[in-house]
This record gives sequence, structure tokens and C-alpha cells, in this order.
Amino acid sequence: MMDKEIFVNLLQDRQFKAVRSILNVMNAVDIASLLSELEDKELALAFRLIPKEEAAEVFANMNNSMQSYLVEMFTEKELKELLDDLYMDDTVDLLEELPANLVGRILNNVSQSKRNMINVLLNYPDDSAGSIMTTEYVGLRQNMTVAESMAHIKRTGIHKETIYTCYVTERRRLIGIVTAKDLLIAEDDTLIKDLMETEIISVNTHADQEEVAQLFTKYDLLAIPVLDAENLMVGIVTVDDAMDVMVDEATEDITKMAAMSPSEKPYMETSVFSHAKNRIPWLLILMLSATITGTIINRYEEAFATIPLLVSFIPMLMDTGGNCGSQSSTLIIRGIALNEIHFKDTLMVIFKEFRISLIVSCVLATANGLRIFLMYHNGLLAIVIGCSLVFTICIAAMIGCFLPLAAKKIGLDPALMASPLITTLVDTCSIIIYFTIATYAFHLHL
Amino acid sequence: MMDKEIFVNLLQDRQFKAVRSILNVMNAVDIASLLSELEDKELALAFRLIPKEEAAEVFANMNNSMQSYLVEMFTEKELKELLDDLYMDDTVDLLEELPANLVGRILNNVSQSKRNMINVLLNYPDDSAGSIMTTEYVGLRQNMTVAESMAHIKRTGIHKETIYTCYVTERRRLIGIVTAKDLLIAEDDTLIKDLMETEIISVNTHADQEEVAQLFTKYDLLAIPVLDAENLMVGIVTVDDAMDVMVDEATEDITKMAAMSPSEKPYMETSVFSHAKNRIPWLLILMLSATITGTIINRYEEAFATIPLLVSFIPMLMDTGGNCGSQSSTLIIRGIALNEIHFKDTLMVIFKEFRISLIVSCVLATANGLRIFLMYHNGLLAIVIGCSLVFTICIAAMIGCFLPLAAKKIGLDPALMASPLITTLVDTCSIIIYFTIATYAFHLHL
Repeated sequence: MMDKEIFVNLLQDRQFKAVRSILNVMNAVDIASLLSELEDKELALAFRLIPKEEAAEVFANMNNSMQSYLVEMFTEKELKELLDDLYMDDTVDLLEELPANLVGRILNNVSQSKRNMINVLLNYPDDSAGSIMTTEYVGLRQNMTVAESMAHIKRTGIHKETIYTCYVTERRRLIGIVTAKDLLIAEDDTLIKDLMETEIISVNTHADQEEVAQLFTKYDLLAIPVLDAENLMVGIVTVDDAMDVMVDEATEDITKMAAMSPSEKPYMETSVFSHAKNRIPWLLILMLSATITGTIINRYEEAFATIPLLVSFIPMLMDTGGNCGSQSSTLIIRGIALNEIHFKDTLMVIFKEFRISLIVSCVLATANGLRIFLMYHNGLLAIVIGCSLVFTICIAAMIGCFLPLAAKKIGLDPALMASPLITTLVDTCSIIIYFTIATYAFHLHL
Repeated sequence: MMDKEIFVNLLQDRQFKAVRSILNVMNAVDIASLLSELEDKELALAFRLIPKEEAAEVFANMNNSMQSYLVEMFTEKELKELLDDLYMDDTVDLLEELPANLVGRILNNVSQSKRNMINVLLNYPDDSAGSIMTTEYVGLRQNMTVAESMAHIKRTGIHKETIYTCYVTERRRLIGIVTAKDLLIAEDDTLIKDLMETEIISVNTHADQEEVAQLFTKYDLLAIPVLDAENLMVGIVTVDDAMDVMVDEATEDITKMAAMSPSEKPYMETSVFSHAKNRIPWLLILMLSATITGTIINRYEEAFATIPLLVSFIPMLMDTGGNCGSQSSTLIIRGIALNEIHFKDTLMVIFKEFRISLIVSCVLATANGLRIFLMYHNGLLAIVIGCSLVFTICIAAMIGCFLPLAAKKIGLDPALMASPLITTLVDTCSIIIYFTIATYAFHLHL
């Protein structure tokens, strides 16, 4: 990795030749990250020294504020050159983030046909296949030979995001797929129609991006064709975009599972105020529902007035129940996200969780019962705590596995049914179970 | 998707021609999933009807019990044919899962050189780049022309997992990379040394697979070369394996964050006993540490003997503190996993969390204070609960962000510092804060 200080010094000393040769051997991603540490003025200077054929890729890897600054600085000619080299999906991403005045500048510098295409792409719903696809793919005809196809790729391929999967279309209808591997291995005079695969895995423009990413992992694809409502081919999603989607979706699930609204940006780039806004709503809901548990405790005021020691087991019971419930819900939520668990499995899952929680609860109840017996020499107390643990853990596991599946069934995101919500519900159950058993065992009359 | 019933009927009626033509148009992944629903006897029969060129890929997509069964059923000739077509990484995966007697049969049916290679691959540590790489890649020489290279690929490419990135080596040392796109677009007589990229992103055989997967997302790669300790090229990791790693690592993190040991297999395929074994250890630890909170509560026995209402706010305080702590820790753990947050950012992160928790706690304290004032007409109680909330939430956020960073620093997995552990710690803090404020406010003398 290039040292930032050295680079800045070279730049300030106007050693442009040295800067150019450094940039020449660097990777576009690393250049973008090096440039992100420069001041605005140096940024514009450095960007103009990047080899022309890499400039668009470096630009695509920059963050929004750098992109906005550069678009503002560019001459019309520079902007036009950049836009010519930028892939369609990156252009659309750029437009979605730029301030309105710069959007206008960009739309004025692309051709009419590209402008029409951009408008179509901007209209696809967020998180749909249409919103992440690119429209630049290699199209072939079924009567071409392999040699003709390779000549076609040589002519047009440089502007395509991928040339490794080629699409055979007839009146814009997708009829087959040929991989670059097939082309490279086949004889020159083979016809495309004899080479192409006709069993095609494709998605609709409105398909959810998570679904698209799952197809990539399931079938080990490098690209997937996107068809519109009339089954005409409109673009492709490439594997690098699918990987980004997978990372984003996992982050979104993890965030929701901790009772937060997901943020679009990384932690550091999200403002304090947005962070607070993402966290407060669920905390409020959960805090107010936790007061229900408090109200229930009030009903047993006399029990712990008589035996104050009872209060000291409340945190342990609540925490253990909550932890068991979140273990179950976490596994189920992840299983649903990976398409391994479906609603039709509900009964099987509940039965499985029941058996697991029986084993878990017996081990935990024995351990804690022993501890209590040794500490307080009170066998009855040990039994009361042990029984409360068994019931709490079993009910926690049931709630933990059922709620995410039920949420999925009624169209809610299962990730919302995670630890915090389960904990709040399990708390109430554990308190009721505990005091019911305790009042009965110690003959407390309420 | 093919209907299982129809397929089984055709198979049982010995309509082999029909079965063959069905299998002929199906994708290898879908065939494997269709076959997984068959009885063992039908499985062997159906497998033999799969087009020869797809058999190995179908086999690689099967689960272990199906693979074991088939290896047992195969004649030596069939086994040899399968092993010839199976990629090296799939062969190694197979060997790692098979019972010992079948491993012997397989090693007897591969060539000496392949056997040596398998032994090397089996010795790489789990989860290392070496354990997920394949040794079949396209190697080129720098003095070859593009036309010679393409002829070389045509001869050898069919047995390579990917031909889209070719590796230029000299005495096994990697000196350059040429993509199939470069080859297809360049003129026939261009020399490889003039075409190849010499700034190479590579990994060592012992690199952690998570690190490898992160390079794929960062640089949008399709394959990455793997070098041994002497910097000699030994294999490549392809993007499909990197995607599997990403999914597995996210699942592992999510599982650990819910205080469980991760399972190698999907939920449904993990036995009840293994599930229980994965869950019990952390539950035990957390349960026993939660009793500390209980012991602390005991010290304040007199406080809630005087004002029993105080007990009823314990669950709400504990839950809210726990939720805030797990919000912070979740974001930090994910940020660390995605390489967005580093230990050097600790102070900045703590300061950020402090400001966030101030906003969050003021909102929550106001909401709850108002509720209490309206319900109990007790201003002092409202203030006590409000102040306890503010302190609890701020401390919870500090603990939630600091622990994962500290864990990372000392080489522990940050995911272990998630909700359950944070909750247990925060509980103790919230109880102490709460009763300290309450005894002071209500002049309770302990």
C-alpha cells in the first residue's frame, strides 16, 4: 500500500511523472482509498493523473462526497469522457446520491438513448433486481459461429461489465446462454445454437435483490439475466454486485435482530443523530412492554415481603430465559434467511426445540439447584428454582422458534422477532412461572 | 422444477429414455436436489442415467450421506471416471467427510501425483485459504502469444474450474495475471508479457478464509491466487467458494452472538443432542454470572422491604440496559467483521456511543418518567427511575462498544462479546445504579 505522506509530498512538489507511475501500477480500489485521504484540491489534481483507462473504475469506487466534488470540478469534456467509460449501474448509483444540480449536469452529458435507459433504471424499486442490474451485456445471435461470436466480443467486449456469459436473443427474447469457456473450447465453425444452454436461470426486474443473491450461491453463477414483465431481456446482475447484496442483507438482518432500524451507511459515516433515531423506537416499545412484567411482579409483593430472597433469583431466571429464547430465534431467523427453514416445517421445528430445551433445561436446573442447595442448604428453594428454570427454558425455546416462523407467514421480517422482543415476552412468562411455583411450594397466600 | 412423483414413477417403470432426457435439460444443482428425495436404490439407478459430463458436478452438489452411499455402490471403473472429472477441491471436501474405509477406496483410484496433491491439501488448517483452494488453474508463460494461449486453453481448459483468470508463472513463481477478457480482446500476436497485469492481489495458503472472502468483495475478483510459504503458486480460490465462505462466516458470527457454538451443518441436519451441546456451555456461564446480580440485590433487601414498588422496575431497567448494550455491541461487532472499525478507532467510537446514548437515554427517561408520574403521581419516583435509566443506558453503550474492540485487540472473537454477555454485565451495573440512587433519594439506610 502506498504511503499517503510520500504521495502527498510528490503531488505538492508537482512531481507529476512520479505520481503517474505510482498510480499506473496501483489497483483502482486502492487508488480510490488513497485518494479518500487527500484534501479536495489535491484530489482533483491526483484524479487527473490517473491513467485514462482506469479513471472510471477509480471513480466508481469513491464515496459520494468525493464523487460530488469531482463532478463539480470537471470540465464538460472531462465529465463526458468519464460518463462514456462508466458502466450503466455505476452511473445510476451515482445519480441516486448526487445533489440535484449535478444530476442535471450529468444528464446533459449523456446521449439521448443512454438518458432514456437511465430513467428506466432509476424507476425500479429499491432493492429490486432492476435497481442493481447493468444493461451492458454481450448479446449473440443463434446463427453466428463461434469465430463470429469471438470477433463480435473483440469489437464490443471492452465496454461490457462481463463477457464471460453471453446471451443469445431473438427479438429481445432470451433463448440461450453461452459462456466464454464454451466459446474458447469449441471449434471455430460451431454454431451458437448448437453450443448454447437453453435451460436458463433468470430473474424478473422486480425480484428482491436477496432472492437474486441466493440464486448466485445456489447455482454458483457469475451473472444472471434480468427479464422484464413481458419476458424480454433488459440486463444482467453480476456476481460482484450479488456479493455486495449478500453482505448488506446480512448486516441488515443483524441490525434488525438487535432491535434497530438498519442504516444505509457504515457505522462511522452515520451521524450520532441518525444512530439515535435508528435505536429509539424499538427501545421505547420494549421498555414500555417490560413494565408489564413489573406490574405482574407487583401482584406478588407479599411473596417477596415474606421471603425477600426470592427477589434475588429474578435476574438469573429472566436472563437465562431470554438467552434461551434468543438462541432459538437466532437459529430460526438465520435458517429462514438462508432458505433452509420454511413455514411448513413449523411443527417439526417446535418439536425439535422442545427436545433440545428439555435437555438444556435439565442440565441448567441441576447445576443451579445444586449451587443453591450448597449455598443456602434449602432443598425446597433448590427445587423451586430448578422447576422454574425448566418451564422457563422450554417456553422460551417455543416462543423463540414460533414467532419468527409466524412473522414470515404473515409477511413480516422474521429478523424483527429476535432477542429483544423474545426477551421481553419471556420475562413475563418466567416471572409468572416462578412466583406461581414459589407461592405454591412455600404456601404463600396472596 | 421436476415433480418428484413423476420422476420416481418413470424410474420405477424403467422408462430410462424419458428419465435421461429429463436429466439432460436439468441443471446439476437441481438434479442433486431432486435426487436427495429418492430412496437409496433409486438414487444409484438415477445417478447412472445422468449425462456423463454432468455427473461429477451433480455429485459435488450432493450431501455427504448420498455421496457415501454412491461411492460404496460404484464399481472401480465408475469411481475412477467420477474422480477424473471431480475438481480437486471437491475431491478433498469429499475425503474429509467420508468414512475411513471409503477414503481408502478413493485414494486407490487416483493417480500417484493426484494422491500426493490430496495429501498436501488435506493438511492445510481448517478455514484456511489452502483448505478451500483448487489446484486446477490455467498457467501461461510470458513469451506465449495470445493465439498460443488461446490454443492452450482450448486443449486444457475443460478440466479447469475457471479459465477466466490465467496465471503467468516462471519456475512456479507467479509473475503476472491475464484475464480471458484481455485475451479475447487483444490481437492474436500480442505477447502475454505485454498483456499481463503485474500488480497481483494474492493470499498465503494459511490466510484465514474470511480474509480471503473480504478481498473478493473489496476488489470484485473472480479468483485469487494462493501462494505457499516460499511464494510459489499452489492454487486458486474461486468466487463461488468465497461466497459460500461469506455466508458461513456471517452465520457463524450470528450464532456466536446469540451465545452458541456454531454448527457445521444446517439447523435441520444438526441433531437434537448437538444443538443442546452447542447451547449449554454459554448458558451455564451466563446463568452463574447472573446470580452475582442476585447477590447484589440481596444487599438492598431492606430497600424493597420498605418500598416494595421498587422491585417492579427491575425488569424494565435490566431489559432496557441490556437492549441498549446489545445495540452498541452488535453494530461494533459487525463493523469489525466488515473491516470498517479498527482498534485504533476505540476512543472515537466510545465518544460517539456516549453522545448517542445521551440522546437515547434522555428520550427514554422522559417517556418513562412521564408514565410513572401519571400512573403513581410520585415525582420523586419518576426522577429516580429517569436518572437510573440515563446512567444505565450510557454505561450499557460504553460496555457494548468497548468489549468487542478489546476482544479483537487481545485476539478473541469479537462476536463472543455480544448481547448475552453484555446483558449479564449491564444487569449488575443497572441494579447497583438503581438502588444507589433510590436509597439516596428515599433516605433509605442500609
